[in-house]
Amino acid sequence: MEKFLDLKNPQEVYRDIIQAINPVVRIERVPLEESIGRVLAEDIFAPEDYPDFSRSTVDGFVVKAKDVFGASHSDPAYLVKKGNINIGEEVSFVLQEGETYEIATGAMLPNGADAVVMREYARDSGDSVEIIKGVATGENILKIGEDIKKGSNLLIKGIKISAGIPGLLSAFGIYEVPVYLPLKVHIYSSGDEIILPSETKTKGKVRDVNTYNLFSLLKKESLDYQYKGRLKDNLDIIAQAFKNSLEEADLVIISGGSSKSSKDYTENAINSLGRPGVIVHGLLISPGKPSIVGKIGDKFVFGLPGHPTSCFVVSFLFLLPMIRRLSGLRDFLPKSFMVRLGESVFAKASKETYILGKLTENGLVLPLPTDSPLVFPISQSDGLIKVPLGTEGKEKGDFVEFLPWRF
Amino acid sequence: MEKFLDLKNPQEVYRDIIQAINPVVRIERVPLEESIGRVLAEDIFAPEDYPDFSRSTVDGFVVKAKDVFGASHSDPAYLVKKGNINIGEEVSFVLQEGETYEIATGAMLPNGADAVVMREYARDSGDSVEIIKGVATGENILKIGEDIKKGSNLLIKGIKISAGIPGLLSAFGIYEVPVYLPLKVHIYSSGDEIILPSETKTKGKVRDVNTYNLFSLLKKESLDYQYKGRLKDNLDIIAQAFKNSLEEADLVIISGGSSKSSKDYTENAINSLGRPGVIVHGLLISPGKPSIVGKIGDKFVFGLPGHPTSCFVVSFLFLLPMIRRLSGLRDFLPKSFMVRLGESVFAKASKETYILGKLTENGLVLPLPTDSPLVFPISQSDGLIKVPLGTEGKEKGDFVEFLPWRF
Repeated sequence: MEKFLDLKNPQEVYRDIIQAINPVVRIERVPLEESIGRVLAEDIFAPEDYPDFSRSTVDGFVVKAKDVFGASHSDPAYLVKKGNINIGEEVSFVLQEGETYEIATGAMLPNGADAVVMREYARDSGDSVEIIKGVATGENILKIGEDIKKGSNLLIKGIKISAGIPGLLSAFGIYEVPVYLPLKVHIYSSGDEIILPSETKTKGKVRDVNTYNLFSLLKKESLDYQYKGRLKDNLDIIAQAFKNSLEEADLVIISGGSSKSSKDYTENAINSLGRPGVIVHGLLISPGKPSIVGKIGDKFVFGLPGHPTSCFVVSFLFLLPMIRRLSGLRDFLPKSFMVRLGESVFAKASKETYILGKLTENGLVLPLPTDSPLVFPISQSDGLIKVPLGTEGKEKGDFVEFLPWRF
Repeated sequence: MEKFLDLKNPQEVYRDIIQAINPVVRIERVPLEESIGRVLAEDIFAPEDYPDFSRSTVDGFVVKAKDVFGASHSDPAYLVKKGNINIGEEVSFVLQEGETYEIATGAMLPNGADAVVMREYARDSGDSVEIIKGVATGENILKIGEDIKKGSNLLIKGIKISAGIPGLLSAFGIYEVPVYLPLKVHIYSSGDEIILPSETKTKGKVRDVNTYNLFSLLKKESLDYQYKGRLKDNLDIIAQAFKNSLEEADLVIISGGSSKSSKDYTENAINSLGRPGVIVHGLLISPGKPSIVGKIGDKFVFGLPGHPTSCFVVSFLFLLPMIRRLSGLRDFLPKSFMVRLGESVFAKASKETYILGKLTENGLVLPLPTDSPLVFPISQSDGLIKVPLGTEGKEKGDFVEFLPWRF
């Protein structure tokens, strides 16, 4: 006989369970190039000013701004050219009144210089240079520490090393980076009907969709994940597999067997292993209601629904955030933006409803069929349209919150 | 002396150059799991119906809908219970009038059955079952081919294998997947001032920021990229390096040396190697003007600006799209969405302007300093705010187009 689930609100899951997770904090140091995509494990402070010497941001002539004050086509200033400053050179001389040096973009400014005149406003005649436009003090210069002051906090631990971060680390000579070790994750599928895609299929059997869709979500995270195989619908087998996995893995994932029917053993298997056991059984969302979160000590077991659409939606909305948090990432919630609906959508007001959506070239989102057992619509979708609790639908042309699979 | 650049509009670059690229089409077949993140190299058609047998989408009792027509609490229908249908079993018997079988979610429907009554609307007394709610024909059933018809086009070549695609391939037993071989890319940095982050630094030298920021963009694509080192500011050295690389690589990238000053050799090096040579020198955008695209036969050389912010912006807006197109991806343009500005921004109306932006928790985007030589703001940013050509700025509260680094 079925029992009734005590459904949890998504916001409660995020706030009370996922936000509250203590990250698994094993640290290693890796070369800068290998750190990309990993999670930074320590705060980083600037070991020096950046730049650590004043430099020119243009090709031109270094000057004292007061020497070229008011210079113009009709009333140029004339400076004595003392030479060239090449890029990469350390400069120790001092610029004197009435003097100039030709300077390349990025080259070091001599002491005494306080501006650079761009080359197009100068006529170089070898020994002297005619300046036809004045410059303000500080113009065309990047000063010592102007970008970053020594000692300032560059990066906080728990961010993903991506976009402009590796370049920043390189700028300071940080070529070994402290990162968290990848989380260890074991994955199981369950259901006596499930076979691998390479196996011969008879009618009644179904090839494993969930494990491969799960891989597509996990592959982008910095994880050490392993597929450990199918489990028979048998309490002892499932409990034993969880027990073995929890000795090694930080998180165990199982798809299928998360409902409340007689063959859904995930809940009992978790509760047989230790405290606190099952902490969530049932989510107040559609699709994806029959989901389980279990906790044994500091480790987690996540029971995903067996229906492919439900499984994918719950993996994206809750499993990935849990993985990010366990991995030490500060920023764990799914990202979203607002977009206009190309067609109306309907929802049950009693649940937070998610509908598969495809973005169009003209900036709209179109809803796709979001029935639990389907596999095709997910493969054509770009993410989820969210219809909040208490709302029966959204009209074509309305702005809706959209959560893309990739961000 | 500087020469003047003939600046190209971004839309022209996308349409006339990047869209027109013939992808490098070397194909290999890889196991399904390894295909994730790769580019699909052939159209895929459904080899069979999905599902290939009618199945129940709930736990309950299979019926002929007409046998339970109008059944209710006060006027139930009674059916003879013939047994159970387990999940994964192939069923060959036929359901006769007045009969029922208990059935699990996902299990195969017998011929003769046309609906399933959910377990909560049935009282099982062993030999017979009382049904207290009628069902419509087809209710709680997923019919043969209802999700996908045999022969229908599942996936088109040139898509990235991600999100729900691996599960779809598995559903059809496609466990070896045709994908394009990763594009071969060689990366150089240039500039006599550039040193590696692990080298001892003297004043005047600058550690290589661009190469590491480039890695952070390239790592997410399916690429075979190699950093080939720094090149001295010398035409012969640069030309020889390009020549060697073009024998092996499909694309050569160099940062620095892309302006029009006397030490910017990228243009001449490209033109010395073959036809058509340099096809773009200068982009009508800010930052990022001094960029070069060269073509030698079917291969490309991309010259990135040396200033870190310019280099990153151009890599993101143009180099990545070129890489995606060469890699065979249909969808190559940077993605964007609309978001409200948390502060006003200013732009030159004469250029398409991009400003680094950081998304806030309350759904706004804040502009960050976007000066070419800076390295810190990029590391704190989530993407680019676009201010179109002809616009001098956008006000706080305006909707702007935002291009996130990650999508």
